[in-house]
Amino acid sequence: MSNAYEKLMVRVKDAARLESVGALLDWDQETYMPTAGVTARADQIALISGLQHDTLVCDETRALIERADAPSDDHVAVTNLREVRRAFDRASKLPTELVKEIAHTTTLAKQAWAKAREQDDFGAFEPLLTKVVTLKRRVVDLIGYETDPYDALMDEFEPGAKAAEVEAVFKDLVAATVRLLDRIHDAPHRPDPGILRGHFPRDKQETLSRKMAECIGFDSNRGRADVTVHPFCTTIGGSDDVRITTRYDEGFLSPALFGTMHEVGHALYEQGLDAAHRFTPMGEATSLGIHESQSRLWENLVGRSLPFWECHYETLQGFFPEELGDVTLEAFHGALNAVTPSLIRVEADEVTYNLHIVLRFEIERALIDGSLAASDIPRVWNEKFTECFSITPPTDREGCLQDIHWSIGALGYFPTYALGNLYAAQFFEQARRDVPDLDAKIRANDHAPLLAWLRKHIHCHGRRFRASDLVQRVTGKPLSIEPYMSHVEGRCADVYGI
Amino acid sequence: MSNAYEKLMVRVKDAARLESVGALLDWDQETYMPTAGVTARADQIALISGLQHDTLVCDETRALIERADAPSDDHVAVTNLREVRRAFDRASKLPTELVKEIAHTTTLAKQAWAKAREQDDFGAFEPLLTKVVTLKRRVVDLIGYETDPYDALMDEFEPGAKAAEVEAVFKDLVAATVRLLDRIHDAPHRPDPGILRGHFPRDKQETLSRKMAECIGFDSNRGRADVTVHPFCTTIGGSDDVRITTRYDEGFLSPALFGTMHEVGHALYEQGLDAAHRFTPMGEATSLGIHESQSRLWENLVGRSLPFWECHYETLQGFFPEELGDVTLEAFHGALNAVTPSLIRVEADEVTYNLHIVLRFEIERALIDGSLAASDIPRVWNEKFTECFSITPPTDREGCLQDIHWSIGALGYFPTYALGNLYAAQFFEQARRDVPDLDAKIRANDHAPLLAWLRKHIHCHGRRFRASDLVQRVTGKPLSIEPYMSHVEGRCADVYGI
Repeated sequence: MSNAYEKLMVRVKDAARLESVGALLDWDQETYMPTAGVTARADQIALISGLQHDTLVCDETRALIERADAPSDDHVAVTNLREVRRAFDRASKLPTELVKEIAHTTTLAKQAWAKAREQDDFGAFEPLLTKVVTLKRRVVDLIGYETDPYDALMDEFEPGAKAAEVEAVFKDLVAATVRLLDRIHDAPHRPDPGILRGHFPRDKQETLSRKMAECIGFDSNRGRADVTVHPFCTTIGGSDDVRITTRYDEGFLSPALFGTMHEVGHALYEQGLDAAHRFTPMGEATSLGIHESQSRLWENLVGRSLPFWECHYETLQGFFPEELGDVTLEAFHGALNAVTPSLIRVEADEVTYNLHIVLRFEIERALIDGSLAASDIPRVWNEKFTECFSITPPTDREGCLQDIHWSIGALGYFPTYALGNLYAAQFFEQARRDVPDLDAKIRANDHAPLLAWLRKHIHCHGRRFRASDLVQRVTGKPLSIEPYMSHVEGRCADVYGI
Repeated sequence: MSNAYEKLMVRVKDAARLESVGALLDWDQETYMPTAGVTARADQIALISGLQHDTLVCDETRALIERADAPSDDHVAVTNLREVRRAFDRASKLPTELVKEIAHTTTLAKQAWAKAREQDDFGAFEPLLTKVVTLKRRVVDLIGYETDPYDALMDEFEPGAKAAEVEAVFKDLVAATVRLLDRIHDAPHRPDPGILRGHFPRDKQETLSRKMAECIGFDSNRGRADVTVHPFCTTIGGSDDVRITTRYDEGFLSPALFGTMHEVGHALYEQGLDAAHRFTPMGEATSLGIHESQSRLWENLVGRSLPFWECHYETLQGFFPEELGDVTLEAFHGALNAVTPSLIRVEADEVTYNLHIVLRFEIERALIDGSLAASDIPRVWNEKFTECFSITPPTDREGCLQDIHWSIGALGYFPTYALGNLYAAQFFEQARRDVPDLDAKIRANDHAPLLAWLRKHIHCHGRRFRASDLVQRVTGKPLSIEPYMSHVEGRCADVYGI
């Protein structure tokens, strides 16, 4: 191992530590920070983010990167060096001032978005959104791209992903989804999703969420759970400090129950990363799409499955006897898997969810290639939504203002949600082959074999493999919509009798 | 204003922001961090603390300091420049290697102290304490001093304070205290401090603490309260984000009740600093002694006074009817002000508290001037303690091992606790003159006039005035023991009938 490599890793770890400090500043802002603290916090976040950038992007790092080498049989060093070079190349293309301006603008835009959504006033958000898009287009120009400007953004979240390829996959996915929706439309049975609504006291939901998190493997010594308006998972101290948040709705069971399993899915990936590689690429998740595959796998493939509830439904009925005492397991399972076109992405079922993503993907590409202005978003959103779902959002609050992503500058992020769904199903199909009697184990509340499989095949590798390579390596096939469609068609067959 | 001054302030603000980020890392570690996060957290804190040091102590800062000037009629710039020069001078006198060695040694010493205290084994702590003292003596030599080496240490916490002057004040304070204790010894009445012990359910204590904090002026939009083993107040985002913590003991009312008022006193100072000067010396507290004066003023001068409880005692009885329903206001007020020589400083009453400080002050001076070896501390401690309190600590755990301060290298810190008591009484005496009917206002739960007085005369000035100058300016007199003795004698007259 070269001396330059070792020195480079010292800098890389410092930069990653600064990023983790930034994650704490964010977490605290969402959970416990007093309201008046927001201005000072924006300054702190901007400072740390600037220092992180300066630690990585400087002449010393450049010199070390040029001199560093790694023996080709040392996959740890090879991976770290490859990823550091990639991050350096991306980051060194962006001047510190631009990075700071983005951090500052998005802090303000996030607040403006929250207020605009509350008041259903897109106009109040539009100037900051326009600024965010302008800054992101500058990023695209500075990063560069081969054929599609959107690639430059997506590469931040899903390294190596290409818009043209994603577009092709999404095209097949939409077509298959529309065919399935047609069949559901004429189905003989209709589950009642209203079962999940009623009165579910918060303290019971909290106890239940904690139990669910622990039963699927969340390690509370290396993490914690808090409450926020918008649930998330964040990593503060490598795999030893991973935090999730949950939202409680006393009138609706799903947000806490499946929100928790979703965030725990993310947390299990982070807790499964190798602590020996903390603060280096080998100790980081490989992409957001793979990350989402882990959350969706636990939320949907496990969490909405019949075997899981064959084990837990009696317990759940014990928590809420008045609401669920007379509801059969089959009716409950039907409610969990009911397919209903809806305005809000985060409330969407597994079948229609990806359509929400494709809509955002198309709008983002148009914003970035300059063919759409931010001011036109509400009109275009509603047109596309109506075409796709046959319903028109009555307000922007239930339309183009529903998601936080654009306000925080996360353009190029949405596709990873749909990719995550596809990866999840493809991984789970393979896990089913590799883990004997997986359904029986889930039915027996034994999730350790599945978690061990995920740790061995996905978590422990850190950033060693690109998402597409990982899928090929783990499942022996390239990414395909088949496992996902087969999964949702199977669920719909059970629930709708089609 | 010189351009160099403006540039200097940018660096100063960045360094202060980094310090505030460090404060969040500490706060989170004490409140919410999962146990396994401690290793990553130590790395994060070391990194931020190193960056803070490097931002302030570097050639660029030195060049700016040399070139910067401020018009003599601009007290903001004059203050900031004076304080930045002072901090730079102190910091640049200490080589990085020494700073690192102190950080490393105190980390080990703190652990060794905690274990030694637990096991009542001074010998296990002694080698590291000896090393801490040696390092601190090197600091003293490098910082320099005029006549007394202890000045160089005290200056870190109470800028400008001189050991000889403090010694003279403490001599008078001890003599007056001993006279008062003699009178108490022969007093006709004896209050029963046992009233404050019993069963006080935690949830009620929490509600009560919140009410007390708000009633004396804590602004929850600009702060928050949490729970820790050792209560503290910390500033995360200037006056807009000030956080306190409280400890709850279901068997003892005082820690939560007076601990909260103490920490809120600190917090009111921080919340009263001028937000326009955030992250510069004009937006910082002037000394630890003045800080302690604010906490002790609210805890003792207000919080243990009869007018305060004339207003609140019925409410308190309502919270704990079984424990306090039959206890008269007079008996309760007596319990709050009972004087009982005790082994532990943090449990001491207002009369004997300062004796604990003088004992530590004398030992620290002897350690620093080389006339006392760390190995002799237990013997000297017990001799002095017996002489002063007429009781001998049965263990070092209840003697010289009780405080964390020496293990973390905070020599020169203890005097600020007693100075804080004296400043508090001197300020309060003046407030009584300036605010009409102050007692009546406290009795009417109207603390706004007192807080406004503190804001106007103390808080808003930041570091403009040194502690001794501030006392002279606010009260028209130099620091004196008279207001404090007059205050405690008055309380003892009421409570002990002397």
